[in-house]
Amino acid sequence: MRAAVMRNGELVVDEVPDPRPKPGQVLVRTLACGICGSDLHTLQHADQMVEMSALGAEGMPGGMSPSFMSLDRDVVMGHEFACEVVEVGENVGNCQVGDVVVSMPVAFDAGGVHPLGYSNEYPGGYAERMVLSDLLALKVPNGLAPDLAALTEPMAVGHHAVEMSWITPADAAVVLGCGPVGLAVIAALRLKGVEPIVAADYSTTRRALARTMGAHEVVDPRDEPAVEAWRRVDGAKRLVIYEAVGVAGMLDAAMAAAPRGTQVLVVGVCMEHDTVRPMLGVVKELNLQFVFGYDPLEFAETLRRIAEGEVDVSPLVTGRVDLDGVPGAFRALADPDAHAKILVQP
Amino acid sequence: MRAAVMRNGELVVDEVPDPRPKPGQVLVRTLACGICGSDLHTLQHADQMVEMSALGAEGMPGGMSPSFMSLDRDVVMGHEFACEVVEVGENVGNCQVGDVVVSMPVAFDAGGVHPLGYSNEYPGGYAERMVLSDLLALKVPNGLAPDLAALTEPMAVGHHAVEMSWITPADAAVVLGCGPVGLAVIAALRLKGVEPIVAADYSTTRRALARTMGAHEVVDPRDEPAVEAWRRVDGAKRLVIYEAVGVAGMLDAAMAAAPRGTQVLVVGVCMEHDTVRPMLGVVKELNLQFVFGYDPLEFAETLRRIAEGEVDVSPLVTGRVDLDGVPGAFRALADPDAHAKILVQP
Repeated sequence: MRAAVMRNGELVVDEVPDPRPKPGQVLVRTLACGICGSDLHTLQHADQMVEMSALGAEGMPGGMSPSFMSLDRDVVMGHEFACEVVEVGENVGNCQVGDVVVSMPVAFDAGGVHPLGYSNEYPGGYAERMVLSDLLALKVPNGLAPDLAALTEPMAVGHHAVEMSWITPADAAVVLGCGPVGLAVIAALRLKGVEPIVAADYSTTRRALARTMGAHEVVDPRDEPAVEAWRRVDGAKRLVIYEAVGVAGMLDAAMAAAPRGTQVLVVGVCMEHDTVRPMLGVVKELNLQFVFGYDPLEFAETLRRIAEGEVDVSPLVTGRVDLDGVPGAFRALADPDAHAKILVQP
Repeated sequence: MRAAVMRNGELVVDEVPDPRPKPGQVLVRTLACGICGSDLHTLQHADQMVEMSALGAEGMPGGMSPSFMSLDRDVVMGHEFACEVVEVGENVGNCQVGDVVVSMPVAFDAGGVHPLGYSNEYPGGYAERMVLSDLLALKVPNGLAPDLAALTEPMAVGHHAVEMSWITPADAAVVLGCGPVGLAVIAALRLKGVEPIVAADYSTTRRALARTMGAHEVVDPRDEPAVEAWRRVDGAKRLVIYEAVGVAGMLDAAMAAAPRGTQVLVVGVCMEHDTVRPMLGVVKELNLQFVFGYDPLEFAETLRRIAEGEVDVSPLVTGRVDLDGVPGAFRALADPDAHAKILVQP
């Protein structure tokens, strides 16, 4: 089958072996797969990704340690997918041929847990076909378009970040960075009834999307820092800050801006070493909650919210490409003013 | 009166003006005052202390901003004191002459809030006399010796750290560093019913004190890392790590050692810039809770615990000096194997 392949640090479109479903797995045809910022980062810094994934795996229960990719073999990335089931393996009781499904991007087999999109064994969604674990596949309800169902994964990241924070509808929120992660956080905050939601981004396009997804106040941090904007429009409620930029220096900047007693959710993924002033945290008794991914219930709840129209994710889709367009789409996403989410339709 | 004075970055014993009680204040004779590691640090890095205090003050409600010391004027440090009331000012209704009292180390007047021991206006406990705010003074009950009552302040720091953490009696604790702060944390954990409490320190003396204060397992991190020791003796309960060392690198080390989902209480005060790997927090979804000080109820509860014999703080007192001995005591405390808490008895 054809796929966009990460090979020797480059993205090339090539033929790769067709995946075959093992017992408990289904073969699917990829209908749509979003390009994630982590994939851009991985292409440039795959070594960091592997190093950090290994560190994370140390803390997991024995059998749960995912088998991470080796960089000297092909990897087909893509972990935000919606698919159609085309063949079922042995011992499959959940999916049927023809079902349109989404899944958390992991697959189980006798060898363990494989992260779809960061594995040498299991191709991700930048390919014509994938295999999924039958029990993790969720049928897309309400006739929801696969394009929109593919946004379940990134939207679940925002939902999880909000659930992991101590925010309530009585609190206020500041969201730093309005890329796909920040926008997903904004949507989840809005559904939770938080007001005001103050969002900040340098990009005009992304600021407009932040309003569309539910931010009450949106600022360019060059004009007004986000926490200052919160003071202007509210300044009274307990504040939670969501750091969704994920570049070195942002953590310290968020700690410096945070009012006393604030919780800072670290949703942006900074893979580099970073410098902070711990005393900023001490004197203000800050709480830093780092978050990653989502749990199966949050993933399913996010699909339900999209399918039932509680959140409209269609404005997030700013481009569509086929497999041949993937390398160009990666380049285009480097400009935050042009795009939010580009979907690959193999 | 005589006092040990911080002057031009040196500690000198000299005559300073006698403090006078304003309305709502009492004049007290200092009976005992513990030497805190923060005072040692302040003598060496007072500029950092002033800079960071100013950053912290930004986040506080308007009238609550403490007036911090200027380094070009005398400062009498000492904020862990027990005193005897010798004179009451106007509008005093709580204290009477002859009362033995402790107090949170702040004093109020028409000019605002003054941190006792870090102020140019209000001398701390390394002096013969101080003034306290009448309403903040707590009478020492049960005939508790002033030497032990003076330990209310450092023990309250440990109590607060435990209260700010999400630990319950069903959880386990690792305490990194068994200086006075770590030992106070251990005592508070033991009173809460936490088991096991695993403590780590390079010093033989401090490891012995950790056992005395209630640690179930104590390790030299050169022989066995603390989290490994926890795995050996428990490894099953949810873990909370208390970082009570406070030097650069410890935060990253705690994050690297922490199991997935751990809360790390940052109790040690690192005043320098520090380097962390945010991805360690992300992939393990760590929670960092920075803590500072205590609230009035925690301070009062700590005094009650000591006075009622729920915690025996006498092993912590490893030395006693008069005012002339303060500069030498500061030097002696640089060796962690010789001392825990030295009391000044002016």
